[in-house]
Amino acid sequence: MEQYSRRHILGLMGGVAAGGAMAGLVVPALAATAPNAVQAVTPAATQLGERFKQNGGDFSWKPQKIDPVEVAAVAHAGFWHQGYGCGYGVLYSIIGLMGEKYGAPYKDFPFTMMEFGKSGISEWGGTCGALLGAAATLALFFPRKERDALIDELFRWYEITAFPMYKPKPGTTKVDGPLPTSVSDSILCHISVTRWCSASKLDARSTERSERCARITADVASKTLEIIHAKMGGTFAPTLKKSEVYAGCTEKGCHGENKKDWQHSGLKGRMDCTPCHTGSKAVMDKRKDHP
Amino acid sequence: MEQYSRRHILGLMGGVAAGGAMAGLVVPALAATAPNAVQAVTPAATQLGERFKQNGGDFSWKPQKIDPVEVAAVAHAGFWHQGYGCGYGVLYSIIGLMGEKYGAPYKDFPFTMMEFGKSGISEWGGTCGALLGAAATLALFFPRKERDALIDELFRWYEITAFPMYKPKPGTTKVDGPLPTSVSDSILCHISVTRWCSASKLDARSTERSERCARITADVASKTLEIIHAKMGGTFAPTLKKSEVYAGCTEKGCHGENKKDWQHSGLKGRMDCTPCHTGSKAVMDKRKDHP
Repeated sequence: MEQYSRRHILGLMGGVAAGGAMAGLVVPALAATAPNAVQAVTPAATQLGERFKQNGGDFSWKPQKIDPVEVAAVAHAGFWHQGYGCGYGVLYSIIGLMGEKYGAPYKDFPFTMMEFGKSGISEWGGTCGALLGAAATLALFFPRKERDALIDELFRWYEITAFPMYKPKPGTTKVDGPLPTSVSDSILCHISVTRWCSASKLDARSTERSERCARITADVASKTLEIIHAKMGGTFAPTLKKSEVYAGCTEKGCHGENKKDWQHSGLKGRMDCTPCHTGSKAVMDKRKDHP
Repeated sequence: MEQYSRRHILGLMGGVAAGGAMAGLVVPALAATAPNAVQAVTPAATQLGERFKQNGGDFSWKPQKIDPVEVAAVAHAGFWHQGYGCGYGVLYSIIGLMGEKYGAPYKDFPFTMMEFGKSGISEWGGTCGALLGAAATLALFFPRKERDALIDELFRWYEITAFPMYKPKPGTTKVDGPLPTSVSDSILCHISVTRWCSASKLDARSTERSERCARITADVASKTLEIIHAKMGGTFAPTLKKSEVYAGCTEKGCHGENKKDWQHSGLKGRMDCTPCHTGSKAVMDKRKDHP
């Protein structure tokens, strides 16, 4: 594609200043139209003041204390329930249990929606679905300014922890007994699963791999509840630093806030850089001289 | 870590057959306990038959026909509303508009939950939040067997489309006029954003980049609604094939279903392999001989 300079872009924009306050933007939903659209969108809902309003208000749900032992067990069982998987397991174990014990609004959540997280969304292998369930759960209670530190703690913990840890009671699941463990190094389902397969020599479609993910569902739910309880009690404090590689490339390196140019500015991402940017065997050209 | 063979694992498991039917698993939530837990979890909810039940039943929400022009505009505005971002923008534009026009259950969804998708979850750069919002929206209506093909179509379309396409009406947003476009090659926020920055020479924290993502929010919402309407009308048919590289490595290659060993079996993922597995400059060792 054609390359654009910042000046060129600003020229294209007719000199509109970037970075202006959103205060100048009145009801953008009303005025914006799709390409080639002629008529304006109906203003009814916005005139009624309903648009972007929600039942009870933004981030209005309050967390409750629940039993961590029960949460872990329900998360594990939720993974297997109807095959709904990791995202459902994590969210049901916390929000569903709050619903069982405290009723609305928790009990009215459309839980099966979280099935979307399974296998990094429909086998695509993106962000781990257990983490999607956890992030969605945290976002029911905490707005972004409070939530970001909680997510940083949870996601970094996921990158460096040897999974699975949860031990289901024998006779209650598809695969009893200990399973091999591996450190994922990544919040991505594809990398997390592949590293476990490499460590265990078991394949990604094995029942053992599913059981491994069921147990991670319990592990992530437990950690998420621990974070919620700490936050409720006013005792949450981050314990994990960013990866050394990430810090070296960003805060201490060239991809932080210095804004020399697009390459030497803040990047989009907090994932450890290592799995994809250190020239490992895994990222070599697999279409060339590949057995 | 120690390496385990499949036989070793099965030995550890005491010969429990893998792949058995879940029918043999009665109320696993009751019996499973966390490591070192002594007491059993409370059986009350399960005895009442409430666990994993939900208001209205699983996947009970029905989609409605809504105006695609309005959806695109609301998605774009939703991105900017309170800075709630892409996941919120996509989900509100469809579920929120259904709520404005049809009431419950749509209007009662806790919309701000979807703020979690912003920047691939709290700046982590995982799966694009617009796609998270879309996947969550689809999962309110369609269970996995129906949904997987819809997600495949949407996600592959996202990988190969030059974004952004949506054109907000001048004077209604932070950055007016055309923006540079780029093909993301990936469903991941980090790669999608970085490729756009590389193409535009604009940095990831620029207002132009935010506006680019606001417009992608509209683009993804539009495509998602198109898919929902087609599904409702019984006319949905996949139009996009998997990437040639992916198909070459999996269905036509060594990482499909042949199950020779863990490396030559189904892998976890449907993302195009190219960005991370073809030895590009981006994945070389950035800590060594890196300027």
